[in-house]
Amino acid sequence: MRVRNRKGAPEMMAANTQYVVENPEAFKGSWAEKFGNQNPIHIEVGSGKGAFITGMAQKHPDINYIAIDMQLTVLSYALDKVLELDLPNVQLLHVDGSALTNYFAPGEVDLVYLNFSDPWPKSRHEKRRLTYKDFLKTYETILVDNGQIHFKTDNRGLFEYSLASMSQYGMILRQVWLDLHVDEAFAEKNVMTEYEAKFSSKGQVIYRVEAQFQS
Amino acid sequence: MRVRNRKGAPEMMAANTQYVVENPEAFKGSWAEKFGNQNPIHIEVGSGKGAFITGMAQKHPDINYIAIDMQLTVLSYALDKVLELDLPNVQLLHVDGSALTNYFAPGEVDLVYLNFSDPWPKSRHEKRRLTYKDFLKTYETILVDNGQIHFKTDNRGLFEYSLASMSQYGMILRQVWLDLHVDEAFAEKNVMTEYEAKFSSKGQVIYRVEAQFQS
Repeated sequence: MRVRNRKGAPEMMAANTQYVVENPEAFKGSWAEKFGNQNPIHIEVGSGKGAFITGMAQKHPDINYIAIDMQLTVLSYALDKVLELDLPNVQLLHVDGSALTNYFAPGEVDLVYLNFSDPWPKSRHEKRRLTYKDFLKTYETILVDNGQIHFKTDNRGLFEYSLASMSQYGMILRQVWLDLHVDEAFAEKNVMTEYEAKFSSKGQVIYRVEAQFQS
Repeated sequence: MRVRNRKGAPEMMAANTQYVVENPEAFKGSWAEKFGNQNPIHIEVGSGKGAFITGMAQKHPDINYIAIDMQLTVLSYALDKVLELDLPNVQLLHVDGSALTNYFAPGEVDLVYLNFSDPWPKSRHEKRRLTYKDFLKTYETILVDNGQIHFKTDNRGLFEYSLASMSQYGMILRQVWLDLHVDEAFAEKNVMTEYEAKFSSKGQVIYRVEAQFQS
């Protein structure tokens, strides 16, 4: 997600360190202490403006959520929501998704969410896709044994790529949705991202997969 | 594919034993002798009226094709096409796909095609789907090591199920197509089935996967 720089975003982030983690390396292996409880930790890599993670955090107060994005401006919009909703179970990390092993100890994360990730359609940009094998390796390292990735997107090419990439990495596809919003049973627990609400209203199909690492 | 019984179909089949194999058990382990060459053997399970397999056989004279269907009438329509085109590299088998190990020795088959298989949408009919684990086990037995299944369908539910079923069986998804006909590179080698031509012309998306067993 590319957005115009937001004036004052750095200052706003710096002023809200109760939600914005300034030195995430320091919490590697001790996120439970940071949250003050032993609840499961779910992270969203590329969290954008935060509609998904704040929606999930409201719905599941017994889960700790960490929103990760490398763009300060979009993360500042996520901060708006966290501040408004006053969510004690959310933390925001302004870091690069490829460096997650710097911030999380092996097995410290219970679930990884990827939502509407940048498709990087050109072959030469394959390595930037968040389901490229190097990223999968990173997620596997920080996830619990048999940890899962829950991924949704409207981008057909990225989804085709991701199914094959995850399978070839050795992950098991537990369930696949090729038109998520026709699944009425899932609709009850689905939390839409900003993109999802927008694209879905235009009749765009939303894809989703739950994939699991094998130990 | 359910079709009305065709009058004279049994007699027609019986009169063309150069294409219709009367005693397929007898050729278990000796299909190369039956074809008179050592070319790879590709089978289509649920071949319907035969547009796919006869199209493939014309395009690839160096591959031996075996069309398998349990419905005599539809197989008789495939016979029409084989007779008209006079294809020496096609054989027709009127047998049940669940009993393939009776007709093929381990490793005797090089590739399995599944095209527009009956979706059996009800959960209680899961075992009848041609990508149910018991069928996958059968294909694995008769296929070469690291053998592949190439599967296409217009049925979203069956495709969602099949991706998960194949993955959970331990197969690797080599490539996935979620709108086959937009792939111009693939279009050149694609041979359409009767269903595919009909549904695609109505704007229906065609799904395809190439999945591989692991040895």
